[in-house]
Amino acid sequence: MHIQDTITALATASGAGAIAIIRISGERSLEIVNAIFKAKSGKSLIDQKSHTLHLGTIHENQRIIDEVLVSIFKGTKSYTGEPTVEISCHGSSYIQQEILQLLLRKGCRAAKAGEFTLRAFINGKMDLSQAEAVADLIASDNAGSHQIAMQQMRGGFSAEIANLRQELLDFASLIELELDFAEEDVEFANREQFQQLITKITRVLKRLIDSFATGNVIKNGIPVAIVGEPNVGKSTLLNAILNEERAIVSDIAGTTRDTIEDEIAIGGIGFRFIDTAGIRETVDVIEGLGIKKTFEKISQAQVVIYMFDALKFQVSNSKFQVEIETIKNKYPQKNLVIVANKVDQLSEKEMQLLKNTLSKVEGSFYIMLSAKMGLGVDELQQLLFNFVNTGALRNNETLVTNSRHYDALLKALEEIEKVQEGINSGLTGDLLAIDIREALYHFGEITGQVTNDELLGNIFANFCIGK
Amino acid sequence: MHIQDTITALATASGAGAIAIIRISGERSLEIVNAIFKAKSGKSLIDQKSHTLHLGTIHENQRIIDEVLVSIFKGTKSYTGEPTVEISCHGSSYIQQEILQLLLRKGCRAAKAGEFTLRAFINGKMDLSQAEAVADLIASDNAGSHQIAMQQMRGGFSAEIANLRQELLDFASLIELELDFAEEDVEFANREQFQQLITKITRVLKRLIDSFATGNVIKNGIPVAIVGEPNVGKSTLLNAILNEERAIVSDIAGTTRDTIEDEIAIGGIGFRFIDTAGIRETVDVIEGLGIKKTFEKISQAQVVIYMFDALKFQVSNSKFQVEIETIKNKYPQKNLVIVANKVDQLSEKEMQLLKNTLSKVEGSFYIMLSAKMGLGVDELQQLLFNFVNTGALRNNETLVTNSRHYDALLKALEEIEKVQEGINSGLTGDLLAIDIREALYHFGEITGQVTNDELLGNIFANFCIGK
Repeated sequence: MHIQDTITALATASGAGAIAIIRISGERSLEIVNAIFKAKSGKSLIDQKSHTLHLGTIHENQRIIDEVLVSIFKGTKSYTGEPTVEISCHGSSYIQQEILQLLLRKGCRAAKAGEFTLRAFINGKMDLSQAEAVADLIASDNAGSHQIAMQQMRGGFSAEIANLRQELLDFASLIELELDFAEEDVEFANREQFQQLITKITRVLKRLIDSFATGNVIKNGIPVAIVGEPNVGKSTLLNAILNEERAIVSDIAGTTRDTIEDEIAIGGIGFRFIDTAGIRETVDVIEGLGIKKTFEKISQAQVVIYMFDALKFQVSNSKFQVEIETIKNKYPQKNLVIVANKVDQLSEKEMQLLKNTLSKVEGSFYIMLSAKMGLGVDELQQLLFNFVNTGALRNNETLVTNSRHYDALLKALEEIEKVQEGINSGLTGDLLAIDIREALYHFGEITGQVTNDELLGNIFANFCIGK
Repeated sequence: MHIQDTITALATASGAGAIAIIRISGERSLEIVNAIFKAKSGKSLIDQKSHTLHLGTIHENQRIIDEVLVSIFKGTKSYTGEPTVEISCHGSSYIQQEILQLLLRKGCRAAKAGEFTLRAFINGKMDLSQAEAVADLIASDNAGSHQIAMQQMRGGFSAEIANLRQELLDFASLIELELDFAEEDVEFANREQFQQLITKITRVLKRLIDSFATGNVIKNGIPVAIVGEPNVGKSTLLNAILNEERAIVSDIAGTTRDTIEDEIAIGGIGFRFIDTAGIRETVDVIEGLGIKKTFEKISQAQVVIYMFDALKFQVSNSKFQVEIETIKNKYPQKNLVIVANKVDQLSEKEMQLLKNTLSKVEGSFYIMLSAKMGLGVDELQQLLFNFVNTGALRNNETLVTNSRHYDALLKALEEIEKVQEGINSGLTGDLLAIDIREALYHFGEITGQVTNDELLGNIFANFCIGK
């Protein structure tokens, strides 16, 4: 950590735009920019107030590189907690590079990925879990993942964790103090209050650990496997869902799309549809290699949609039953939705017959659907949406989404449970203190009060450069 | 032109970055942003000074969309000459879209391509040629094109044109005034001074018109055709040039590359290498279709490099002569450079023999080169660079690069020459005045003092959205 360096990087997306922002942070940032900036007002940047904007030119000797707008942030009143300058230049890649290279020649160092946020953490502008939320926020591509990243960035559970940690730390100190007076057999730490605290911590930890199941799927999208023959109407169905959600999805660049998975936001929650076409043909040769891969995919899913052509249903009734049973037996814990497609071409009588059959399949939901006509699509979306526990989101509850935090919470709970056992069995203060210290360590890991270079390196390497 | 609208657009490059800028311009910009912004300081944006930065959150009702930094520009002290707000938000595409959509719901209109700069022009912050230079600046990808765009944006020749136009306008008014006193036969306009002005204008116009040849190639890159068999070493040569200029080229995203042309910057000037491989095989059937296309490409080039394998030279001497003569006869005005490649494998004697032969080819330059070993590459680059008249660039002379300006200058000169003829033949004031008005019109076209919606539409449609 060379915190004395002044760092610079392009902060906006790469490529040509109308404008681009080059960020400079560090003790020398104002001095370095001032040396290459000539304000239209003629005044030096050094004398200007914090949080002001200045029009002028960036030049190297006599050569004008660009007309720019410079924002200055003095003292610790900046994102990084260091003096910071942002240069808003014309968005040509050439100009961006010319200014960056000039800054490097004048004494800046190229910032590493996430280094601005790392400095914000080191300078106490945010804790580690908040810093991690910045990356999540930038990566968020739907309302759900956005909301939990925003919540975490704005404090989330880290304030709660930090408070509990402080309370626990106070007790640990008192208990350790008793050890100094061991011969006098005093109790500085009120055991009743201590028990209350341990109970509270246990409850909070369990709630946070439980929230990971929901938080994680909201952050990463709910995996939905669609099972069925290729021409059964899967693409039409996805397009139908896509159409209704066009405003949310199509305007967003960079939505992950490849041949296997389609990500679609329903009600602001991301669903990853996994194509498992082909299961039907190979269901008889259950040991086949292809089928193995398909079942692997299903095992990753939280919801399985079994889709079939209602027009073909009548003639292959038994085969359908076999497939449903195969899936149900293999994955009893999955939410199973049976979708009968093309029902618009059924007669009233056929429709009723099909409904009767499907309603008898235990432990599953069924939807009568026509992807082409858009029938039943709303109903399916609503059903999928209901599988997600969005209650927590609606109530602004804290959700843990980061597996690093989840691990630390699990370890903290383990230690707290040891402390509880210790209390129950009347363990002496010196032994209790060891378990408490262990728990404190894991609390500190989450907020970054306990950290090391390797951990920080791993976390910030996942950031983009310029953040 | 609905100048009363408040417009908004993403101003930074699309896609995810650390931060993104959303720009809002128009009378209501402060009011609209203030309604969705909650400053950390708790103060209203409306009460803040111009050119200040404010940390806070963008929210819709209770939902926080992002923590942002807002820049405000009040009155006419902004790029557009209107109240302007810039929101610096987290660079997620989702957040960008959420904020933009919120702004649209709150009364902004989505800005059209170039609309911010159009407003800057309409509000008198820049003239039309300066506005056009903004687009050129953003498109610039090497030092040469950057310098002339910057020069033009900062005033360039438009101040000169505007001054000459004003002087001419003053004379036109005086001459037209004489018409009111026609019966008294007075001369308000001093004919000697008028002749001096016309002489000066003629000189300036001719200089500017002449500069277009240089300005245009610097802006668009100097086209260089490489003629020769495919395996003669062209790719190796281009790579060798590229390597030496890596710092300039490889850091710049978006450099045009396709299968036919390679653009490389040499000494800050763009060169477009046009692949005309295939000429050799078909040189005998000069009427062939393929050869016609190749010669078309050569006709666009300013420099023709004839490249051949020095090792094969000995055996096909006569063919080589025929090809060189064909090119020279067909394009006598091109700069011809004969490049003998693979000379590192020649003996001293063969080398000397080849040099003797090549030095006898009149009206051409030759380079002994080994693309693989990097021999002669410097020399070739220097030679190519010398073909560009960079004197004007070095001396910061005004260069016309825009073909619209070039056309207007040609038309203005035509009218001024008519005025000169009128003076010479003792034309009466009323007839002189007509030609002067025509010339004034074309001057005004350049700076935008004379304009119309169609012209503006054409110019600004080439801008990116957000500028």
